[in-house]
Amino acid sequence: MGLKTKAEYIESLRGMKPTVYMFGEKIESVVDNPRLRAGIEATGATYELAETEEYRPLIVTESPLIHEPVNRYTLPPSSIADLVARVKINRLMGTRVGTCFQRCTGLDCLSALSIVTYDIDAKHSTPYFKRFIEFLKHVQKNDLTCNAGVTDVKGDRSLAPHEQEDKDMYVRVVERNADGIVVRGAKAHQTGSLSSHEIIVLPTRALRKGDEDYALAFAIPNDTPGLIHVVGRSSLDTRQLDGCDLGNLHYSKYCPTVIFKDVFVPWERVFMCGEVEFAVEMVNRFSAYHRQSHGGCKSGKIDCMVGAALTMMDYNGTEKAGHLKQKAIEMVHRAETLYGCSLAASYEGKKEPSGTYFIDTVLANASKIHEGKEMSEAGRLLVDIAGGFVADLPSDRDLAIPEVGELLKKYLKGVASVPVEDRVKMYRLIEKLVMESADTISDIHGGGSPEAHRITILRESNLKAKKDAAKRLAGIESK
Amino acid sequence: MGLKTKAEYIESLRGMKPTVYMFGEKIESVVDNPRLRAGIEATGATYELAETEEYRPLIVTESPLIHEPVNRYTLPPSSIADLVARVKINRLMGTRVGTCFQRCTGLDCLSALSIVTYDIDAKHSTPYFKRFIEFLKHVQKNDLTCNAGVTDVKGDRSLAPHEQEDKDMYVRVVERNADGIVVRGAKAHQTGSLSSHEIIVLPTRALRKGDEDYALAFAIPNDTPGLIHVVGRSSLDTRQLDGCDLGNLHYSKYCPTVIFKDVFVPWERVFMCGEVEFAVEMVNRFSAYHRQSHGGCKSGKIDCMVGAALTMMDYNGTEKAGHLKQKAIEMVHRAETLYGCSLAASYEGKKEPSGTYFIDTVLANASKIHEGKEMSEAGRLLVDIAGGFVADLPSDRDLAIPEVGELLKKYLKGVASVPVEDRVKMYRLIEKLVMESADTISDIHGGGSPEAHRITILRESNLKAKKDAAKRLAGIESK
Amino acid sequence: MGLKTKAEYIESLRGMKPTVYMFGEKIESVVDNPRLRAGIEATGATYELAETEEYRPLIVTESPLIHEPVNRYTLPPSSIADLVARVKINRLMGTRVGTCFQRCTGLDCLSALSIVTYDIDAKHSTPYFKRFIEFLKHVQKNDLTCNAGVTDVKGDRSLAPHEQEDKDMYVRVVERNADGIVVRGAKAHQTGSLSSHEIIVLPTRALRKGDEDYALAFAIPNDTPGLIHVVGRSSLDTRQLDGCDLGNLHYSKYCPTVIFKDVFVPWERVFMCGEVEFAVEMVNRFSAYHRQSHGGCKSGKIDCMVGAALTMMDYNGTEKAGHLKQKAIEMVHRAETLYGCSLAASYEGKKEPSGTYFIDTVLANASKIHEGKEMSEAGRLLVDIAGGFVADLPSDRDLAIPEVGELLKKYLKGVASVPVEDRVKMYRLIEKLVMESADTISDIHGGGSPEAHRITILRESNLKAKKDAAKRLAGIESK
Amino acid sequence: MGLKTKAEYIESLRGMKPTVYMFGEKIESVVDNPRLRAGIEATGATYELAETEEYRPLIVTESPLIHEPVNRYTLPPSSIADLVARVKINRLMGTRVGTCFQRCTGLDCLSALSIVTYDIDAKHSTPYFKRFIEFLKHVQKNDLTCNAGVTDVKGDRSLAPHEQEDKDMYVRVVERNADGIVVRGAKAHQTGSLSSHEIIVLPTRALRKGDEDYALAFAIPNDTPGLIHVVGRSSLDTRQLDGCDLGNLHYSKYCPTVIFKDVFVPWERVFMCGEVEFAVEMVNRFSAYHRQSHGGCKSGKIDCMVGAALTMMDYNGTEKAGHLKQKAIEMVHRAETLYGCSLAASYEGKKEPSGTYFIDTVLANASKIHEGKEMSEAGRLLVDIAGGFVADLPSDRDLAIPEVGELLKKYLKGVASVPVEDRVKMYRLIEKLVMESADTISDIHGGGSPEAHRITILRESNLKAKKDAAKRLAGIESK
Repeated sequence: MGLKTKAEYIESLRGMKPTVYMFGEKIESVVDNPRLRAGIEATGATYELAETEEYRPLIVTESPLIHEPVNRYTLPPSSIADLVARVKINRLMGTRVGTCFQRCTGLDCLSALSIVTYDIDAKHSTPYFKRFIEFLKHVQKNDLTCNAGVTDVKGDRSLAPHEQEDKDMYVRVVERNADGIVVRGAKAHQTGSLSSHEIIVLPTRALRKGDEDYALAFAIPNDTPGLIHVVGRSSLDTRQLDGCDLGNLHYSKYCPTVIFKDVFVPWERVFMCGEVEFAVEMVNRFSAYHRQSHGGCKSGKIDCMVGAALTMMDYNGTEKAGHLKQKAIEMVHRAETLYGCSLAASYEGKKEPSGTYFIDTVLANASKIHEGKEMSEAGRLLVDIAGGFVADLPSDRDLAIPEVGELLKKYLKGVASVPVEDRVKMYRLIEKLVMESADTISDIHGGGSPEAHRITILRESNLKAKKDAAKRLAGIESK
Repeated sequence: MGLKTKAEYIESLRGMKPTVYMFGEKIESVVDNPRLRAGIEATGATYELAETEEYRPLIVTESPLIHEPVNRYTLPPSSIADLVARVKINRLMGTRVGTCFQRCTGLDCLSALSIVTYDIDAKHSTPYFKRFIEFLKHVQKNDLTCNAGVTDVKGDRSLAPHEQEDKDMYVRVVERNADGIVVRGAKAHQTGSLSSHEIIVLPTRALRKGDEDYALAFAIPNDTPGLIHVVGRSSLDTRQLDGCDLGNLHYSKYCPTVIFKDVFVPWERVFMCGEVEFAVEMVNRFSAYHRQSHGGCKSGKIDCMVGAALTMMDYNGTEKAGHLKQKAIEMVHRAETLYGCSLAASYEGKKEPSGTYFIDTVLANASKIHEGKEMSEAGRLLVDIAGGFVADLPSDRDLAIPEVGELLKKYLKGVASVPVEDRVKMYRLIEKLVMESADTISDIHGGGSPEAHRITILRESNLKAKKDAAKRLAGIESK
Repeated sequence: MGLKTKAEYIESLRGMKPTVYMFGEKIESVVDNPRLRAGIEATGATYELAETEEYRPLIVTESPLIHEPVNRYTLPPSSIADLVARVKINRLMGTRVGTCFQRCTGLDCLSALSIVTYDIDAKHSTPYFKRFIEFLKHVQKNDLTCNAGVTDVKGDRSLAPHEQEDKDMYVRVVERNADGIVVRGAKAHQTGSLSSHEIIVLPTRALRKGDEDYALAFAIPNDTPGLIHVVGRSSLDTRQLDGCDLGNLHYSKYCPTVIFKDVFVPWERVFMCGEVEFAVEMVNRFSAYHRQSHGGCKSGKIDCMVGAALTMMDYNGTEKAGHLKQKAIEMVHRAETLYGCSLAASYEGKKEPSGTYFIDTVLANASKIHEGKEMSEAGRLLVDIAGGFVADLPSDRDLAIPEVGELLKKYLKGVASVPVEDRVKMYRLIEKLVMESADTISDIHGGGSPEAHRITILRESNLKAKKDAAKRLAGIESK
Repeated sequence: MGLKTKAEYIESLRGMKPTVYMFGEKIESVVDNPRLRAGIEATGATYELAETEEYRPLIVTESPLIHEPVNRYTLPPSSIADLVARVKINRLMGTRVGTCFQRCTGLDCLSALSIVTYDIDAKHSTPYFKRFIEFLKHVQKNDLTCNAGVTDVKGDRSLAPHEQEDKDMYVRVVERNADGIVVRGAKAHQTGSLSSHEIIVLPTRALRKGDEDYALAFAIPNDTPGLIHVVGRSSLDTRQLDGCDLGNLHYSKYCPTVIFKDVFVPWERVFMCGEVEFAVEMVNRFSAYHRQSHGGCKSGKIDCMVGAALTMMDYNGTEKAGHLKQKAIEMVHRAETLYGCSLAASYEGKKEPSGTYFIDTVLANASKIHEGKEMSEAGRLLVDIAGGFVADLPSDRDLAIPEVGELLKKYLKGVASVPVEDRVKMYRLIEKLVMESADTISDIHGGGSPEAHRITILRESNLKAKKDAAKRLAGIESK
């Protein structure tokens, strides 16, 4: 027990036997599948950097719960400093892996649960907080990675869960017994579900009377019987499988659909069951934390994109072009905006009754609204700066063919001083950064759809104070 | 001779024997390779619709040159009506194929040549216009597709062609003899080079004294000895090869790098050779036409995207969500902006000395500037409306596995009345529309880089008239 | 009778005796009030340019109705060429006066009436079209300026006209008798009502059963008894009154609220009365024409703004700054976008049953949506380029004081070669172009609110065709 | 001595006798001139709130220098908490006064001087820091307001100060003697110079060899002989003078040009003189602080604008319109973005050698870049929400005329339950918020031009780290 090395982390996954399908086939060894492994490596970087002298002080801290050093990705924030550290290590990790590292969502679930289970207990005298704390100790002691089982498949979005024709479109309890509950349904976009030891399930939306069976929170190992992970397609998914033209040599992202085929959950792992009025709080806490998280990792991803843009300017001989510098500034500005708002949300956090610190939601959502709109703009700017070979660069396999490879190397060369191989690699990385769907689409839909972020900042702002200020200046008596 | 059917078009390509490499292999039959065939089908649609009663009047017209019915994609515009028709059939085709149909660039070359060869002859008493007209007759009589060999690989972009360390970074003449010339170099992003019968080469930039060997225009069949087509990677390229999860069932795009390994061009196919001061005109004419073309086809592509967005709203049960309707409006607005400016550029065209009609370049570039910035925004809006399954939808192959397929179909269902298969197909199409790199990156770099479009509208505007107007209102005497 | 000179136009206004209040005072002579005169001068420019050799061919044409030369601002379009001419002369006039010239709205009313009165008659056998044609002859023969009495004051916007607590919040008939009707209500934002000979009233919104008394169209002279013009405040309104620090030496805009205090309208001037189902058509036709008009005049205004920006760069010594050139390009791009879409809307117009030509509404609204968003951006860019003296430039009166004037001239100088007076004048013009409210706010609300433009392009687009295209590509059978 | 009440502040200004011209006249009593008084009232609010129980804890703190309670607007930050407090009190004040309160710039000068004088001394063994500290004590003990004399008039912007034809285009030393120095030149846009007790002069740009006479920092009372304040025009400046149609009943802004006509400055008030290499640091420190300041006050101003927008929706009966709510969200988002980035810049501040805390400049500039672009967008959104009466609302004087006033009140009414007077007042406030030039143009040019902010974030970012991250992922060995 204790902090895991990256090697130990990967071995621990090797010991799990989840049911996995991908591209029409059953996958027997998750860690040996190159596509999945690239995701596991990204999560692995959170273990790897914790081993280094340089980054360990940032990533490792003492847990006030188990009084041992833990990886921050297992630590619900118990201070402003913890909140701030989340954003900073996320930016570090985002820059490091150039994609999603797939370990923050689990922490966001832990953080939400550490608040809401306490609040439910306070009202209902339920035992959820105690159970959760036991689970959290287990996570911290074993340095586990958790996944966020939040997004239900949703069926007809104009209908509440219990109004759906098929009642399973949101994960629900289908049986309660002495030992635990049996659940059915499916969760989509399960980023890193196979890189995680535990799947934490929370509701995905506010619920109301009639939806009691859907008001559920629990945690189970990713290889629990009845759990089926189906890894879907993403836009560059065969590159890892082929081991060619990777772009990002080390890391990638994948997001299975996870089906719960009548899965048993023991009571000690159930953290909410039927308290329908707390679903909205659970969703809001999780989402707010997750939007804060994105403010860190996505600014880190833009850092990579800026680095790629500037490097390509060096390679193309355009490093002095004023209009390209302007575009690089636009990219930097977007990174700092995400980061700044997310950081401010952290510094302005407050302590909740359970002792966990929660962020300022208006500022966290302000960050996320920018992400949802501006990450694609950052990508567009990067393509603009880099040039057209992002789209149709010849394969490394063509560069290796004798009859055409040398000609390609001749013609793909940029400035004379830079090896053509480096220019090719950088184009390939840019293709990955901009055109890989699993990662880029989370810029828009990760942490809830863009409309949710917008509604939140209006709802959470003090609108009356603003109206009163305007009325005073206009000389209107406020009631 | 005369108009080809789509079947005849494909057979005519089957008769050509270009040298092609893709993904480390030599491709023997272009028309039977599914990835290339998807591109050929897109171009084939320009032949197919010309056969239909509904669209023939739009696409087929009488050539004033050969006095026979020809496909408009072989017709340099000889009237305002011809200019306008270009935009309208491009929008039609863009909507039809949902990607690039790869036949407009060749026409844009023909149109540019029909002006500039005349202008060169007027100054230098060269025989280019006559040669070109013979070539044009050949194209029209045989209903050929041409490719635009414009974009050189460029090497160090801070250096002129003759200043490069490797003199071959722009296509150049390396030998002149009695029968013709020998050329060397490479052209990148050769959209549809293998769907084309002829490769038309033009310079890619303004040239100056010292660059004479690069001031070149000519046309040769795509299987001329020494021509090597290397088909590069794009983001969903293995989908066609695997025949699975296609998205767009019928069409796609590919853009080889084409290497000219000391290729012989007979004099009758040489349309410029050494008249360095005309390079800029050639580039400007071609680019302006091509930017006008994009105003049509890309608004057509947005039409598809809007259709996909609205359909997905129907399928998800979100068709009444006001904020999603607002986003659909944003998409429609972008389509109409591209279209409106491009159409206006056409209606405001003028006759050139050779008899060809040329567009208003300020308005054509106004359209293109929007494209370069707003197509990616249209894509982002589409993803926002559609939801997260654009990123990680399970493969059709998983849907076909007995043990998991039925579960997937259960959970991927949206509104009860819509077959799950339709929802899956529409998500797959959206993935293709937004995340396929060969097409989306041409939104940014097609027709020259964004900065080129911007400089053009400043240079071509009457700035003095604007200054004079301001001075008059301010009461400043203008000099 | 016949075309009026500018002098005759102004004399004809002097002969009218409207009831006018401004800033707490009754105004006896409209043409001698400097604030109103600046507006009259702007409208006067449409007469003045019609007298010049250079512009007469653009502005004057033969009326197919009276078979005499008429000013185009009295001519409902009877051909595509007429539609296009509208946009071009509007751009010309917008550049010329650098603000609203206040004569297009009346023409937009005439154009709408020339279609809708015919359509009402076709259904109801009413005599409106004939009456309207007689009125139109009067306007053309006397070269009159008309005002658009469209925007009602509206009261509670969540209620229909007949649901309002005060029934007069939309102009309505309060009495019908043998000779005519008596109307009551008020119209807001009556641009140039005192520069106009005739006030044309149309409904401002779609009406339904119960709103019959509000389904009204008519025309009356601006000095009809019971009409009261109240000229409101705008942001630089005292400059004309003081005759100092004008900015635009010649022209300005004003927009009274016009109250109809039980005004009698003879039947021969009533063009709709009670045909409630045609209100929506009247509004839509007028609005579409007016949005087309703006595409011309506002691009002309941006031309002035670009001229001012470039001149100020010359005066400040910043004419080589790349980032400022980029901003000028942004301004030019906006002008051409408005213009291009509006021009395309015109070229794509169609003949209506009455013989009048109507524009493509989708494209006209595409133009207007850009205006509503981008004019303020053009202003921001202009301020950015020009520098901070737009805000707080010392008054010309301070420059004239001996003890401080010379010092100010010393310190307000830019580049040595440009007289300080010219720089001061240009700053003052920029202040007027950007900070004058009567004109700039019409960028947003003129021709209906921004939301109206957005809804229109969705409603008028062929959405089914777009969905069908997407479904075909996805392989979904369309029903 | 000690904290001043607002009344004492105003009396202290009454005791000063600056030389002032405005609109062609010499102003004898600054505090009795209604236009200037509105500015003084805004600054006065910083004194007034310090007297209140509610806000005193925020605004008043103990000075580590004089160990007495001081107003934070006299306190260079000596901790992170001080940095953060700056942003928070600025937002409070911005919301309170709905315009610039004109006291932050002086503090920004004090803060910059508290760093740079120390740094200069460290290199040159000059006595600047000690002199400055004495001055600072004086400011704190007397609760003085200071003005930022930074922006020189600049002449030809392509030339350095010493290259100008007229050497006085940047403030310079023209004489040095035993008692002090004599300076000549002019500073533009001197926000609140007459509301300030002291004018603090800093250089406005980086200087180089040859510019020694321009490397100047000093402080003098605003009525020092030779100082001439010329109050320029702004867009609603006569409203205060007329006492009518004010909009903001209490507050406004004004920005004189201040001429230094051979002004004597005693040595004890000279804080830099000739150390040309420190000019850039002085500018950068001041600018960075000032950009941070704006992040607070301008988000506060948007709060007022949001309040006005929502109130107007209540008054117009449009409070349920979804598209208007979306626009209010856009406004809120902008406020929080400015605030978040500015707050983050503060929390991430660092201690300088002198003991003063300095902010993170990248984040501060990220905030300012948004301000420069988005404040005008916030204004546009407010006008869109509010409706057209922002432009041409009848004057209160017309509402007071018997024959037309009652009619106007009838027709200007919105929803039945809201007094028409309140609706009129709110429209008038919105006019002031959006169309008043002295305040709105500082959104763009305050704290340096937009390009300066952009260059700063590129220069201050760690670009090498970003390149290295990209290279590592691409597999390129970094050098």
